[in-house]
Amino acid sequence: MLKVKLLSMDAGSLYIVVLNSNTLKKNALHSMDRIDVIKGKKRLTCIINVGEKIIGDDEIGVYEDVAEKLNLKDGDFVEIEQQLQPRSIAYIKKKIRGEPLDYPEMLEIVKDAINRNLTHEELASFVTALEINGMSLNEAEYMTMSMVRTGNTLKLKDKMVFDKHSIGGIPGKKETLLIVPIVAAAGLKIPKTSSRAISSPAGTADIVETIANVEFSINEIKRIVNKTNGCMVWGGALDLAPADDIFVEIEYPLRIDPLFLSSVMSKKKAVGSNHVVIDIPTGRGAKIKNFLEAQKLAKKFIEIGKRLGMEVRCAITHGEEPIGRAIGPALEAREALRTLMGRGPDSLKEKAIGLASVIFDMAGKKNPKELAKNILKSGKAERKFRQIIGEQGGNPKIKPGDIFIGDKTFDIKSKFTGKVLWIRNDQIIKIARMLGSPKDKGAGIYLHKLRGDIVKRGDVLMKLHAENEKRLTRAIELLENMEPLIVRKNISREMIIDVIPSKTHTYKREFYFER
Amino acid sequence: MLKVKLLSMDAGSLYIVVLNSNTLKKNALHSMDRIDVIKGKKRLTCIINVGEKIIGDDEIGVYEDVAEKLNLKDGDFVEIEQQLQPRSIAYIKKKIRGEPLDYPEMLEIVKDAINRNLTHEELASFVTALEINGMSLNEAEYMTMSMVRTGNTLKLKDKMVFDKHSIGGIPGKKETLLIVPIVAAAGLKIPKTSSRAISSPAGTADIVETIANVEFSINEIKRIVNKTNGCMVWGGALDLAPADDIFVEIEYPLRIDPLFLSSVMSKKKAVGSNHVVIDIPTGRGAKIKNFLEAQKLAKKFIEIGKRLGMEVRCAITHGEEPIGRAIGPALEAREALRTLMGRGPDSLKEKAIGLASVIFDMAGKKNPKELAKNILKSGKAERKFRQIIGEQGGNPKIKPGDIFIGDKTFDIKSKFTGKVLWIRNDQIIKIARMLGSPKDKGAGIYLHKLRGDIVKRGDVLMKLHAENEKRLTRAIELLENMEPLIVRKNISREMIIDVIPSKTHTYKREFYFER
Repeated sequence: MLKVKLLSMDAGSLYIVVLNSNTLKKNALHSMDRIDVIKGKKRLTCIINVGEKIIGDDEIGVYEDVAEKLNLKDGDFVEIEQQLQPRSIAYIKKKIRGEPLDYPEMLEIVKDAINRNLTHEELASFVTALEINGMSLNEAEYMTMSMVRTGNTLKLKDKMVFDKHSIGGIPGKKETLLIVPIVAAAGLKIPKTSSRAISSPAGTADIVETIANVEFSINEIKRIVNKTNGCMVWGGALDLAPADDIFVEIEYPLRIDPLFLSSVMSKKKAVGSNHVVIDIPTGRGAKIKNFLEAQKLAKKFIEIGKRLGMEVRCAITHGEEPIGRAIGPALEAREALRTLMGRGPDSLKEKAIGLASVIFDMAGKKNPKELAKNILKSGKAERKFRQIIGEQGGNPKIKPGDIFIGDKTFDIKSKFTGKVLWIRNDQIIKIARMLGSPKDKGAGIYLHKLRGDIVKRGDVLMKLHAENEKRLTRAIELLENMEPLIVRKNISREMIIDVIPSKTHTYKREFYFER
Repeated sequence: MLKVKLLSMDAGSLYIVVLNSNTLKKNALHSMDRIDVIKGKKRLTCIINVGEKIIGDDEIGVYEDVAEKLNLKDGDFVEIEQQLQPRSIAYIKKKIRGEPLDYPEMLEIVKDAINRNLTHEELASFVTALEINGMSLNEAEYMTMSMVRTGNTLKLKDKMVFDKHSIGGIPGKKETLLIVPIVAAAGLKIPKTSSRAISSPAGTADIVETIANVEFSINEIKRIVNKTNGCMVWGGALDLAPADDIFVEIEYPLRIDPLFLSSVMSKKKAVGSNHVVIDIPTGRGAKIKNFLEAQKLAKKFIEIGKRLGMEVRCAITHGEEPIGRAIGPALEAREALRTLMGRGPDSLKEKAIGLASVIFDMAGKKNPKELAKNILKSGKAERKFRQIIGEQGGNPKIKPGDIFIGDKTFDIKSKFTGKVLWIRNDQIIKIARMLGSPKDKGAGIYLHKLRGDIVKRGDVLMKLHAENEKRLTRAIELLENMEPLIVRKNISREMIIDVIPSKTHTYKREFYFER
């Protein structure tokens, strides 16, 4: 019998109880062991943590969530009983040994992750084993199905539901704000969910949020999509594949992402999409460095799609430099709106039209590229965009100038005369984040020069925007050792601008993704 | 500025602060990010956890250890500043990618583990990567040195300091209680530290604890060893290699042990031992299954020893069945004492004499085996044992019958007539633990028959001891589906008693140890 000491705190994602080391010793228990805490007829399996300071001998520290489940009051007495480890731990060990997991095993791990039966340490071990030993297509399929089965789903009545996803990594990627309305304006359903930025300056959800709400329930999304054919919402609030969110949380500090195939596909499957275009930005400065890698990855997406009853097409796109001129949530929202209104950069228009036309082709439309171009040019896409924004609680009459951007600005001028040979994605991202993106929605970068532009010494290359002076100063300092836009006279110098890491490693996996 | 909310709780092994998800979003922070919490001139790097229930917007939940460090009161205001990840995370990723780590990198990881700069998730990732990708001898050396450098050390004045270690796994292994006094009685220093049982019925520290104290400070141990030449204490309280304790904690739920070489050697190095015998029990039912494996492991121990300036000899010993007749802390203490007094089982005597003679040989003693035998037979070892026990706060005049053993007993009788062909270590361990070992020190098993003994139907094979009836009943139930002692008439049947797992895997590592 142990005496309950209530801890006025929620332990978060696990059921945890706290014993001191004397009590552990006395009961031959060990930190991290599982015990059933028993009060009357109720019992709950909890993980043991060790605490000394406020937990006395024969006391059990109980967090609020455990207390709630068992209806415990301070000073109550409870029985404890050691429990065996869940079977899922044996499956994690199997993966550590390099053996493949089957569907029931994968599902068990995913269920236990969601039901708080696996600790963060155990889950970290699992994702690390996946990272090192890799996942087969079978395993990726099982993982995707397990993630979908344990989460919420959106059920539309339409036979064909379309979707797009970009594997990301490129600054300035606001094309979703064009693609969704183009597709929706053609009468096709596209229930698009997006993420927020993790390491980039702006995720699609961050951009849309500057002009509309992005957090909705499944039912609200259903209503919006049934009315407008599309939506641009944040996927994180929907519990579409809650296991993925748990894994992402664990992977985050190490910036590894062994589950990326399942992570992408589970979210598409959960909203009922059955025709999906995957954008794979490729090139120096992108996650995928060359066509061979891109093709391999594309084949995997297509094969997984087949197994899940989805038609997947992959577009290998230019990923070497930012898309358009604007980087940062508000600046990108402005640029997207301007482009929908007919005055945007070519790279953005072309990417949006290209990806939309892949969707139109899957839908059996004739002249898909012409169709996409016309919808954008005619203003139909803009009207559809405004309708969706309106349904998502935004102002449908919004003008680009209404979107607040950081008013602390600084012009970066060229030290050389010549031609813009290259724009470095990694430096652009670092500067934009230093300026405050995505936290300060108005912060970011506007590129005055793009690759191929002729530049004179002293010309403005880009404008920095920040919401406060401190951030602006820091970004300018950071820029002292950087050269995000490479301007040189002699075109032949391009050959030595950068050296792609010469050290090659024998990876057991084909792709190493970093979030 | 965030408002401090004190949480009346020690977060344990990390500096943790709790923010709610609104505050995270507002500051573009993420669960698991590191921030400096700043109060006046003090700052402390903390890990962010997310909590909603009791943490409001712009509040920061602060555990006691953080509050202490920064001198925070409820309602104080603090600044926060996002911090970069520690370099050690890059080194962990290196190991995940399969690249070797050098000494400064390994040391950095170990230091950060000890200084609470790495989360349990990150450490779990690290030990999993070590488990899958293995450790080279170089890495094991660096890890050992890092563990020693970051912990306490014992410094004796003697040039030669001796030690022994068993890689374990065999029930009934109480031989340390004989070896230490035999070696000490010969005038050699042996500052022996032991562990408690994790998955076995009794660790050496658990056994000794039934007749003496085992928890001492480094200085107390120094005094005991300088006076008696030896000690038999628990290593866990000494912080000899605190990093190892942290890693063990993380490895425990998965029962993996990639650091076992460093774990063993760091503790020997830390107490200044420079002549060590390693006992490698080998055979079916042991951790090491055959001579080839044992020899490979031995070579590693010897090589690591050389690099650390230690002479290591390895003894490959019979590991197929229990040592002696007693299993469980008190029963084993009784048997050890009886054997020192001249009345013990041959297997125990022989193992103790054998291992002690390896130490004597390293010490340059002539006729080492005769010497060990004589010290045991003459009663010198018993007198030394009583002296050490006395110095460790025990009764130096203790008789075997004084040691309390569980008085709830049950005799297990043979269903067959024949010969004891085999004793199964794994079943013996499970039954002993079900009886209450090591928690109930008096619980355990006493074997009335050993391998090779002739048995009639109805003869007592073994006696179960428990401290309470419930445990005894459960163990008897467990035994219904077990056959720990295999008695058969026809000796040829031995060939099919058990099937060693027929499935073979291609391991990247040579050894997979389970704690």
